[in-house]
Formats: sequence, C-alpha cells, structure tokens
Amino acid sequence: MKKIINDPFDFVEEMTEGILKAHKKDYRAENGDLRVIVRADAPVKGKVAIATGGGSGHLPVFMGYVGPGLADGAAIGNVFSSPSTGQMYRVTKAIDGGAGVLYLYGRYQGDMMNFEAAAEKARAEGIPVETVLVTDDVASAPPEKWQERRGVAGLFFAYKAAGAKAAEGASLAEVKAAAEKAVANIRSLGVALGACIVPAVGEPNFTLTEDEMEVGMGIHGEQGIERVPMRSADEIAEILVEKIVQDLPFQAGDEVAVLVNSLGATPLEELYILYRKVDELLEEKGINVYRAYVGRYACSMEMQGASLTLMKLDDELKRLVDAPAGSPFFTQI
Amino acid sequence: MKKIINDPFDFVEEMTEGILKAHKKDYRAENGDLRVIVRADAPVKGKVAIATGGGSGHLPVFMGYVGPGLADGAAIGNVFSSPSTGQMYRVTKAIDGGAGVLYLYGRYQGDMMNFEAAAEKARAEGIPVETVLVTDDVASAPPEKWQERRGVAGLFFAYKAAGAKAAEGASLAEVKAAAEKAVANIRSLGVALGACIVPAVGEPNFTLTEDEMEVGMGIHGEQGIERVPMRSADEIAEILVEKIVQDLPFQAGDEVAVLVNSLGATPLEELYILYRKVDELLEEKGINVYRAYVGRYACSMEMQGASLTLMKLDDELKRLVDAPAGSPFFTQI
Repeated sequence: MKKIINDPFDFVEEMTEGILKAHKKDYRAENGDLRVIVRADAPVKGKVAIATGGGSGHLPVFMGYVGPGLADGAAIGNVFSSPSTGQMYRVTKAIDGGAGVLYLYGRYQGDMMNFEAAAEKARAEGIPVETVLVTDDVASAPPEKWQERRGVAGLFFAYKAAGAKAAEGASLAEVKAAAEKAVANIRSLGVALGACIVPAVGEPNFTLTEDEMEVGMGIHGEQGIERVPMRSADEIAEILVEKIVQDLPFQAGDEVAVLVNSLGATPLEELYILYRKVDELLEEKGINVYRAYVGRYACSMEMQGASLTLMKLDDELKRLVDAPAGSPFFTQI
Repeated sequence: MKKIINDPFDFVEEMTEGILKAHKKDYRAENGDLRVIVRADAPVKGKVAIATGGGSGHLPVFMGYVGPGLADGAAIGNVFSSPSTGQMYRVTKAIDGGAGVLYLYGRYQGDMMNFEAAAEKARAEGIPVETVLVTDDVASAPPEKWQERRGVAGLFFAYKAAGAKAAEGASLAEVKAAAEKAVANIRSLGVALGACIVPAVGEPNFTLTEDEMEVGMGIHGEQGIERVPMRSADEIAEILVEKIVQDLPFQAGDEVAVLVNSLGATPLEELYILYRKVDELLEEKGINVYRAYVGRYACSMEMQGASLTLMKLDDELKRLVDAPAGSPFFTQI
C-alpha cells in the first residue's frame, strides 16, 4: 500500500482536519467534531437546509458539495462506511435555519438506517425533515426498480439542482420536489479498470487483470453487470451511452447535462477522449448537450476508471444547473 | 498499458477535440488547428495577452489555465514534447489585442527554442513579445542558479498573478514585472511514488519499488534529489517544507500562498492529510498561510505523488492571487 498517509486509523480525521485548515472561510466542524462539517455561515436563516453524508474516500463527495448553492452540511463516515445517527443529527441541528431540512444522499443501506433515525430524532424536536435518495447507477437494479438503485456520480447533479432551488428561497416541499425531479431524470454507469485500497485494510478491494475492465462496478467495488476485455475509449463510450440512453429512456430532442467523471486515478486527458465520443454519439441520437462537466466529481480514492452521467433537463432543471455555486471543490459562476 | 484511449497517436488531438466539444463557450481552435487553442473571445482588445504552451499530459496545465484572469492561449505539443514554433506563433497572432504578448511557460529547452523563434517572428511583424520563464522546481538546480530551474506546479501561481495583472489593464512591462516578481517568489518540490505511461510509448517512464519514493523527480520523470524509503505523510511534509523554506528562504512573518498538488493519481484525501502537516509546520515557523489551494493543478497524467508550492506574497501579489479567474478547469470568484 503506497499512500501519502500516517496511521491508517487517523485517515478520516486527518483528512478533515486538513480540509478545515485549508478552507477556514468555507467550513466549520460543529463543536469541533471532525465528523460533523457544515458551511461556515450555517445556519442560513430562512433557507431550506440540505444535509448529506456517507462514507469517506469519495472526495469531492460529500464535503466538497457543502457550500452556497449546494448542500449545507455533511456527516462524515469512515472510509466506505456510514456516519452515525448522532453525526447526522448534529449536522441537522447545525444547519437548520427554520425552514426545514432536506436529507439528500446516495441509497446505501447503512446510510439509510442511520439517517432515518437522525431524521426521526430531529422531527421529534420540531425540525421538519424530508428525504430524497439518489439512485442513478443503472447497473445496480433493472429499469423498473430504478428507485432501488445505488447512488453514484449523479449525486453531483442532485446537489446542484436541490442546492440551487433552496438558494432561490423555495419551501421544503419545493426543494424536495426539485430533488426528486432531478433524481428521476439522472442515470449513470461506469467502468472500473483498477481497484483502490481502503487504508485500514491495506489491500485492493478487488482485482482486475491487465486486460479486463468491469462495466457497472459500484464505487465501493460492488459487483457490476459484466467483466469484459479492456476496450478502447470509443467502445467504452458506446457501451455507456447505449445502456444509459435506453434506460430512462433518453430520446431525440431531449436536452441533457452530461458528466464524465473519473473514479480517481484516471486522468483528465482520458476523460476528454471519452467525452469526445460521448458527445458524438449523443448528437447522432438527436440528444442535445446543454452543459457538460468533465473531471473528478465523485471518486473512490485512487480507483482507475470513469463513469458517465446524463440528466434530462426541463426549463427548471436548466435554470438550477446553471445557477452559481461555490465550494473549495466546485465553483460555478 | 490500461488507459481509456483509442489509437495512442491520436491521444492529443482527441483530447483537445473533447475539450473543445465540452467547453464550446470557453475555447476555440484557431483556424481549426487542434494544437492552437485560445480563449473563445480572443483577442481581447487593448489587453496584454498571455501565451503559454508545452507538452500534453499535464492537464489542467496548459489549456486549463486559458481563460479570463489567466492566460489567453496555449500551444499544445505531443505528450511531454514541445509544440512547434508555428503553433506558438499562431497562438500569438490569435490573442494579440494590440497591447503586446507575454510568453509565460516552464523552463524546458525544447519549449524555449521553439517559443523564442515564435517570438522573433511575431516581433518582426510588429507585435511586442516579452518572455518570463517559470523556474520553481528547487530539485533541478542549486539556489544560486534558481533561474535555471525547471517549471512545475508553480506555473499555476504565475498564471494567476500575470493573468490578474493583465486583466487589470496593466501594460506589457507591468505584466512582465508582475510575472517576474511571482516567479522569483515561488518555490516547489515534489515526491513521486509511481510512474505514468506515455501512450505512444506504452511503458512506465521510470520504476520505483513498492517501498521507494523519489524526492524532487521532475514531471516528466527527470531524476530528482534522492530516492528514499517510502515515508509517512507527516514525514513527507517535513521534507518538502524544510527544503522549500530554506531555499528562498521563507522567514517568520512572511505571508504565503500554498499549493498542495497531486501529480495525478494521488487522491484528494491524501493531499489534505499532507496539507494538514504543511500548515502546522508553517505555523511553527511563523509563516502565515494567506490562501491555500489543494487539488490537481499540474499533473503527469496518472503519476502517483504530490508536490508542494509556496509563493511569498506582498500586497500586490495578494491582490493578484485573490482576483477572480475563470476556466472550465479552474474558477475563482
């Protein structure tokens, strides 16, 4: 295991401490708890607050999407493990500005169990809490069961849409509705080329030979759709576009936001080579790219591979995607 | 070689095509030449233009720093190879807004040879061209010969300072002076943990065992200061901070901008663990961090490792670092 770390068991606290030291004006750890991170100016009075969270190892997910026009706070778990109920509850208390709190996170069992308990506790104290689960990974359940899927890089679009809606001054019901609309229109699929190493484990979480890739592997190494021989960038683009477009389905005349995301180690050069073909294939299908994002938006530390996310847009989602947002990890003007 | 690419010999063109497709509003290829990339709105009338360029494989360097508040155009070479004189000349012609052009790039022999020839050609046509070389890598020459060093991640601060100065409406002499001041105050050093693969070569450009790292290795795999056993994040921070601080030297009372940069594969989590100790060590020395950047600012594709850059600030450099800048790869408000 060749990583720039100290004691693997200090990985999460030291990472969070580094983020707080580097970005003092942007974040604070509520009551000094390095697992309870909120906007420096939280709570924002009168604004619907958005709480998120999950396991560490996915930066910029989750803390990187805490900021104006995005989420208001995040509960930070161990690598690939859920935060506790108490951590999510304390995030909720810290960000509640009197207009209610939307829980917005990827659909993983551990997170659901802990965050639902936190929501109950907050509701018991009179804080309205609603939940929207992000379920964009087409590899993890068939189309008719899309609401049972895992959340992957589509989280970014969900934060963007819900965060912008909340920033507009919408009510909790309206922010929830915008998040639900976004999630219903987001579809993602990835290919893994190589594993990452959970620091406290010290070994790769799966193995792929030099000639293999896995289509649809989860961001924690969950089994995908199929393991196939390594393909070219153009062939990977075809696989991803076909499966995603058929799934919603996306149709000629649709306008979409596109995200080509690195799982971590895969460099920007390769992402753009992939994007080139994705754009071409969508154009052939009459699907119009309204806005494109290419980079590292949801990673699994140093995992090698990439994912494609499409979000079908209407006028409201276009406005929300275009809205300004700011964090040390993602800024849009 | 496990990469998301097509024919390795199409790597640069396909990457650039992908960038242009994804970011139509930001860039254009002058006369359709995929090696001559400029701001979509170039030339900006009356503004000093900044031209840069170099080998591919370093994204966001170089194209990623073309945009408002940064550079105006970039000549794009093959992976780790200089662009041609003609490409840099055409960048110059495309971005010249009547106030002269500053060439700002890392000090590599191939680039210097080609870009100086381009400058001569432009001057012969009446375009004033000045050059500032970025020479921040302390590993590549002793302190007294700092102007003979290679340029590495410090390029980012040089673009930021010169780009902001040009955006303020300064003259060519003033923009050059600001760039020179920035460069004189920037020092960088990195550690490499693993190699990257040049697509057209197909093999790693160097090898390190599982227990080794190299201090001061160049971004193309150039030999560093020493090859040592793998160290902890805190020990790496100590090595980098000590060598950099002694070099300028930085002193108690100084204010600095800090960049902790991934060489590519090393994830954000590890960068922040490194930053945590860097911040602590600087504080112990009485050196005040004015602003911190952590992320992938100058990479070698999927190379594993990280670098530290410090820039000593005065009031002018603080203002220039704080100024807004925007590109699809780096946005600051």
